[in-house]
Amino acid sequence: MDYLAQANAGVAGLQPYQAGKPIEELERELGISNCVKLASNENPLGLSPKAQAAIAAALKDLTRYPDANGYYLKHKLGECFDLDPAGITLGNGSNEVIDLLFHTFVGQGDEVIYAQYAFIVYALATQAHGAKAVVVPARDWGHDLDAMLAAITDKTKLICIANPNNPTGTVLPPAALEAFLAKVPSEILVVLDEAYNEYMDPALRAPSADWVKRFPNLVVTRTFSKVYGLAGLRLGYAISTPALAGVLNRVREPFNCNSLALVAAQATLDDADYLAEAVRLNRSEMGRYEAYFAARGLGFIPSNGNFITVDLARPAGPVYEALLREGVIVRPIAGYGMPNHLRVSIGTVAENDRFFAALDKVLG
Amino acid sequence: MDYLAQANAGVAGLQPYQAGKPIEELERELGISNCVKLASNENPLGLSPKAQAAIAAALKDLTRYPDANGYYLKHKLGECFDLDPAGITLGNGSNEVIDLLFHTFVGQGDEVIYAQYAFIVYALATQAHGAKAVVVPARDWGHDLDAMLAAITDKTKLICIANPNNPTGTVLPPAALEAFLAKVPSEILVVLDEAYNEYMDPALRAPSADWVKRFPNLVVTRTFSKVYGLAGLRLGYAISTPALAGVLNRVREPFNCNSLALVAAQATLDDADYLAEAVRLNRSEMGRYEAYFAARGLGFIPSNGNFITVDLARPAGPVYEALLREGVIVRPIAGYGMPNHLRVSIGTVAENDRFFAALDKVLG
Repeated sequence: MDYLAQANAGVAGLQPYQAGKPIEELERELGISNCVKLASNENPLGLSPKAQAAIAAALKDLTRYPDANGYYLKHKLGECFDLDPAGITLGNGSNEVIDLLFHTFVGQGDEVIYAQYAFIVYALATQAHGAKAVVVPARDWGHDLDAMLAAITDKTKLICIANPNNPTGTVLPPAALEAFLAKVPSEILVVLDEAYNEYMDPALRAPSADWVKRFPNLVVTRTFSKVYGLAGLRLGYAISTPALAGVLNRVREPFNCNSLALVAAQATLDDADYLAEAVRLNRSEMGRYEAYFAARGLGFIPSNGNFITVDLARPAGPVYEALLREGVIVRPIAGYGMPNHLRVSIGTVAENDRFFAALDKVLG
Repeated sequence: MDYLAQANAGVAGLQPYQAGKPIEELERELGISNCVKLASNENPLGLSPKAQAAIAAALKDLTRYPDANGYYLKHKLGECFDLDPAGITLGNGSNEVIDLLFHTFVGQGDEVIYAQYAFIVYALATQAHGAKAVVVPARDWGHDLDAMLAAITDKTKLICIANPNNPTGTVLPPAALEAFLAKVPSEILVVLDEAYNEYMDPALRAPSADWVKRFPNLVVTRTFSKVYGLAGLRLGYAISTPALAGVLNRVREPFNCNSLALVAAQATLDDADYLAEAVRLNRSEMGRYEAYFAARGLGFIPSNGNFITVDLARPAGPVYEALLREGVIVRPIAGYGMPNHLRVSIGTVAENDRFFAALDKVLG
């Protein structure tokens, strides 16, 4: 039996997502310890102490199914960001929220617009749903909103925008985004993926949650996997009109968010010190990366995320491999059509020092 | 904008899954404490001590993304059940595994066969994918395999079988299942959902994992939400040929299983005492339920799960409501076309005593 032939349109063309290499896998392969992973844009500070306490308190109820409606977390998010809880859709990471939007609205014959170099999950989801990808060339590594507008046809179902974008770290000015939203026909959904929102320069941050009221075809997605430090627990969410959330809720699996993710997210929202320290560390270390690259004549894309993408001006694959042998894991992004770049997540001071020393050694 | 009209075929007809009422919700509503929940077929023993230790040890890495491939858990499952790790697909609960099979193989125009009274997720997934549900009348509350075979057409894509079935607790003899599998055309996938497998009389347990080698169109699903006591963490898996798992792996979200679920599942597989006690308690308390119902002249469906479904011979809704006011949550199953039945999960001795006393009081 040829399962690929039996599968839905698009499945045969899918390539599984390539995750950052896990530390334990590298250590197993090299027979070494003390590796450093700067490959998946994780918070290097470890879990928030408040999240840790919340998890400990919740263990006794772990044999129970999670609250299918995420009642307390939605209300907490409502308080923190002035959101209507009825417009929040929780997911098993924002990846699931994005997939849920595709499951609900995208099918064969539909077109999905996204930018060159945009977060690869949009391409995977488009392909998996048998839709047509309309990839709009980037401008200075970022999204070209005018070109994206011009790419709209009567088959366009969804437009995906990552702001800041991963892996390039580029951002769009709020005024440009707002003008864009005003021009997109109201029957086309716009997904504004703000996974790295908290790391942005506050002056560049869009009032996206408010825009949902003016642009009911807008869905903003956010995650607890980055600054909130909960990548291992999986939690993300969408902000939309309650009407749109009501539709997503029909398609959503009932227990898609686990109990510990729900309580840990709630607790981390309350840990202002932890969040502030994560942003502060990221900003100061980003400065060290920029200075390091500049001093060695290496180009880089100015980033508003918790990662920076460096142009090695030579094939990055062998450099990635050599860094692995030094026990430093970063992310090659040839799959994004950027074969000379490496994406490096901003770690702790000590982790970043390891990277600087390793790259110096590898580049000679 | 009418989002339902914009949504894919089937979405408009979906009704969200009705979860068992959470304890905290009832206590909030009634202003009482000490409620008992016998509504979601959870393990009443609390978390395995080994799982608890594994979770504590894993907290330090929780800012990291999970292992996208579940390497260690798949190998552990391979050891425990003599499975090929390459044929295992992990999911965020077996619900996600079932949805993944639908996402991958089922679309508009396809037919999905399942039995009357079968686990409701099959109906929801069929509807969500715009496929046609072929619901085969039950025989003695269980699946009628001959009638299911007769319902196959050239449009049949998937057949779902729950064994034991939820909410009826019925089982199919292994020889009957085997004969059925031999007759299903090889291009039609058969999902054998064994969420309650561990509670079954061992003599009735089918060698389903071995069958996957003989019937490559068979997919067996299992869960850690029942006897393993990890409903709150979400973990399930499918056993299939490596070829079929390879196709599912293309469509699967990369980080669909959280880090704590992976380590807790692995640890619980090692906790033979915990698992044996859960099965022992279930068996002895099931006997008490049967005797209780028999003594009161109430019919029940003999169950191989960790729940029992009682026929009140009157509308069950008001009895359910009256039990809630006594602080006891069970599950009404009118949504299954069983308006006179209630499904009761087998709890601890004390929880079951609470149910017996409450039902006596309610029935007068």
